[in-house]
Order: sequence, then structure tokens, then C-alpha cells
Amino acid sequence: MRPRISLALALLGLISAMTSAQAAGKDTPSIQQILKASKSSEWRALNPDNTLYMDLPDGRVVIELAPWWSPKHVANIKTLVREHYFDHTSIYRVQDNFVAQWGDPDSDNPKKAKSMGTAKTHLPPEYDRSYDTSMSFTALPDGDVYAPQVGFSHGFPTARDPKTHRTWIAHCYGTVGVARDVDPTSGNGNTLYAVIGQARRIDHNLAVAGRVVQGMPLLSSLPRGDDANIGVYAKPSQRTPILRVRLAADVPAAQREHLQVLRTDSATFARIVDAKRHRHDAFYRDPPGHASLCSLDVPVRVDPKFAH
Amino acid sequence: MRPRISLALALLGLISAMTSAQAAGKDTPSIQQILKASKSSEWRALNPDNTLYMDLPDGRVVIELAPWWSPKHVANIKTLVREHYFDHTSIYRVQDNFVAQWGDPDSDNPKKAKSMGTAKTHLPPEYDRSYDTSMSFTALPDGDVYAPQVGFSHGFPTARDPKTHRTWIAHCYGTVGVARDVDPTSGNGNTLYAVIGQARRIDHNLAVAGRVVQGMPLLSSLPRGDDANIGVYAKPSQRTPILRVRLAADVPAAQREHLQVLRTDSATFARIVDAKRHRHDAFYRDPPGHASLCSLDVPVRVDPKFAH
Repeated sequence: MRPRISLALALLGLISAMTSAQAAGKDTPSIQQILKASKSSEWRALNPDNTLYMDLPDGRVVIELAPWWSPKHVANIKTLVREHYFDHTSIYRVQDNFVAQWGDPDSDNPKKAKSMGTAKTHLPPEYDRSYDTSMSFTALPDGDVYAPQVGFSHGFPTARDPKTHRTWIAHCYGTVGVARDVDPTSGNGNTLYAVIGQARRIDHNLAVAGRVVQGMPLLSSLPRGDDANIGVYAKPSQRTPILRVRLAADVPAAQREHLQVLRTDSATFARIVDAKRHRHDAFYRDPPGHASLCSLDVPVRVDPKFAH
Repeated sequence: MRPRISLALALLGLISAMTSAQAAGKDTPSIQQILKASKSSEWRALNPDNTLYMDLPDGRVVIELAPWWSPKHVANIKTLVREHYFDHTSIYRVQDNFVAQWGDPDSDNPKKAKSMGTAKTHLPPEYDRSYDTSMSFTALPDGDVYAPQVGFSHGFPTARDPKTHRTWIAHCYGTVGVARDVDPTSGNGNTLYAVIGQARRIDHNLAVAGRVVQGMPLLSSLPRGDDANIGVYAKPSQRTPILRVRLAADVPAAQREHLQVLRTDSATFARIVDAKRHRHDAFYRDPPGHASLCSLDVPVRVDPKFAH
């Protein structure tokens, strides 16, 4: 008799599932077990000064900003957020297997565009930056199609070129970038996008503002826009309204999300990467032995002190 | 003054967009122009005997089957389709950044499961197959994290190992696979999934039935299921009903979709791959120079004889 469907499906979906202990090989722990055994010091709280809450009708998207990589863009975005620029804007473009994009749909129409307030309209490109050996970087061993080296740095999926000593955040699923025109200084943070599919081709061609740490399904499950116009919705009624965007620091502490992200330089993260590369579980006939950068999620949890 | 938003967005979304001629570099054609210059002989009509129409309330998903890779599974799926097994089943699992899965949600419950009719309940694994030099294979030049060689074969994204002479269809976006339990013979085609995110880790661990050639947004934009249960919807009311699944050959010829797929061994496809790798367009400051297997879509169109 076949196993019950819930076990069958659990085995099929090992990566993101809370797998039962039976699903792992006899002597190898499941991802769930590895996480359970983590130390509290291996988790870091999100910095409220670098965390955005984007409230949509169906829930909240939490974004961790990346000031180390794009300081000017992050600062400009914070100015926009604090001046309530994004409130009552919308998600107006969703292109299948690429991006969901939001902001003021009329931002390029001088007659209708929302005021940028004190934020800058142009910024120097921050598509990549220099690094040295002091940079925290947890390399992945399986190579990459696009970059000489890939790995994780402070929780972000990154790539780097040891010849040029340049590094950039990779456009993996959940990466939040700064939309721009052809003019390389025209990206100012008033228009942002989250990667919902394949987007490595635009690595180091746009500034990356951060990444979504919670709420991706709110973006990835949106109806797709007009494929003949790169996913822009034909009708304004199709857009998803953004109720408001706030910096977590501006939300009373007791009302914050209290999220923690697993440190990507932790032993637990290394064990998870190893488990995902080797898939020691009965379901796999041929474990992959490899894991691409964008196939690896960084675990997020509610601080146990606040979990119910 | 910034360019109008439609041009700006077009430049940002070059891959899937119908790009204007301005968007390409001066001497290099856009993807749209390359496609326009294709010869009719470079397009192949879908074989109605190997094409499924899955009708959902919001539209049709068209799936091209892959009998060369999984002959027994494809034959069994056709039996199920012809015996109307899938009619009134549902999409009951959507796991973010992984798969959308469908069939009979009670298929593992002997008291409730739909009859499999004359279809087989178990099949030998067809996770990969042998190949020789006669196999049509258009290699990609940029490597792969998971496999020694990747490329396209008869329109399918494939990988292969020249040491073992085994080849398999890669679990790229749109690949349709055969769900199973731990028992490697338990995948019989009554439960199928389409990749909506990152799934290369399950390459050559499940049989691939084919790929979605039209209608992916109908699957990729579905609400996600319960993340604590690998995306299975908690409530039956959340499921998307499947009205019916038919083989195109069983639909009167005049009512078929008349789709054509660009031959992946054509000169036009080679030009498109080159254009995507090198991104000769003003928007890119640093063209990627590379393209991963799963970042490359195979163009599909309506046969011009039937287009309105």
C-alpha cells in the first residue's frame, strides 16, 4: 500500500518542508532537525534601521536593506519611506519568471508624478563594490554560470570576481533591486522590484537595495501583467495597492515582526548547505551533490522569545 | 527629462519583452527582430499526439509531452487522459519557488481514490536515459552547476553526462514531472507537477513527462499553499479545479491551438542564445556574457497561417 499522501508529498518537497525524522537517512539529520539544533548565537535579529515593512491588502512583505552594498540608494530609499512616498503607490508590473515591480506608476510623467520630497532623483551607480579579505564571505563550492565565485555575505547571496575585487548581490529569488532607465544614474529607489524568477542576467547592472525575508508569496503569486509589455498591467484596476511602507525602526518595538535570520557564516548554515547538496534522504535515488547559489534559501524565524 | 516609463520598462525587461528596435545596440538586432527574421522551416508544429490541453477555469495550459525520454510514463499519462482520469481533479499543491502539483488529491487513499482505469499503477523509473552521438543536442557554452553538459534537445532543456552517456530533461521553469513516493516505481503519471521556481536538485530523480509551452502564468500565479506542509492547500476550497485534460489529437483539428515551437537546433535559436548571452543593448552596462540553461526560454508562437 502506498504511503499516505502527506508523507509522500513531504518526501517530494524536502527542501522547504518541515520534514519528519523518518525522511532523512538513518544517520543524517533533516533540515528541520539541523535547525532545531542551532544555537541562538547563530541567529541575528534584523536591524530595525535596515528593515522595511511593506503592507499590502493581503499581508506584509518584510525587506532587509543592504547598505553595505548600496549605501546611497539605501539612504535615499529610507528618505522616501520616511516621507511616505510609497504610501498609496502600487505593484504595477509583474512579469512571469522575472520580477514584480512597484512604486508610482506615473513616476516618469512630470504632470502626474508624486513628489520625491527631499530624496534625490539621481544617484551614482552602485551596481557592485570593491571588497578585500576582510569581507565576510561564505563561499559555495559548486561554481556558478555567471560569476567566478559565489557565496553568502551577511545573509545575502553574493558573487565576486577575485581578479577585479568587485562583489555584488546576485539577483536570486527575493532580491530587491532599484529600477532605472538607460541613464545609469537614473535609479534612485523610487521604483523597486523583487525577483520572482530568473534574473541573474541583470547582476551588476542595477543597484540592489536588499532582499525579501518574509512575504515572498504575496509577490510571487500576483497575477501576471501584459506579456507584450514586460508584465505591466494594462489597467490600473489590476494593480495591487501598497497601503504603506515603513522602516521597522519607526514602528513601536513591541509591534515589530521580531524576525531573525540564520547567520550565513554559522556552522548550522554550513550544515544546511551540506544537507541540501547531498540530500541524504530515502527519496533521492541520485542526490545532486551540488547546489546553485539561488537554490539556497537563508532560514528566517520568529525570535523564539516572541513565538507563540 | 527621463524617457517615458514604457520605454524605460521595456529596456529593463528586455528578455521577455517585444523590444523596440531602439533598445538594441546600433548594429545588433533585438530578440524581436531576430524572431521576425526567422524562416518558417525553423519552427515546428506541436505533434497533437504528444500535446495535452489542461483546461482550468481561467484558461488553458498546453503541455508538450516528452516520449523520447519517458516513453512508458508518457504512454500511461495518455491512457489516463483518454480515460478522463484528470477531469474534475485539481491543482492541490503550490509550493513557492518550487512546484505546482495536480491530480487526484485523494489518490493515496484507497477509499476515495479515483479509479486508474486501465492505466498502470507502477512503472519502472525513467529518470534518465542513455544517449549516443546521434542524439540531437545543442550545447550551451557557459557550463552548469549540476551537470557536466547542458543544452537543448528537441526543444527541451537537457543535461547529460558524457562519462555515463546518460541524459535527462532538466527541471527548469515549466518542466512537467511525474510525482512519486519513495518507491522508485510509484510514479505512474496520475500526479504531475510543473516547476515554478528552483528545482534542479530533483533532476534525474523523477521522470519528466514534458514541459509547459503555453499558460505558465496560470500555474505560477496561483496562491501558495501551506508552507508548513510543502505547499499543499489546507482546505479543498483553495484548490484550482481542472475542468478537463485532453490530448490535442482528440480535439478537432480546427479547434487546436496551432502552436509552433522554435527548433532549438536552428540558426535563429543560436542567434537568440547569443543575443541573450551578450545583451547588446544600451541598458546593460556590463552584459552578462553568459546564460544559464534555465534562463533560456524556447520561443513559441501561433502558426502564422492561423494568427489573427
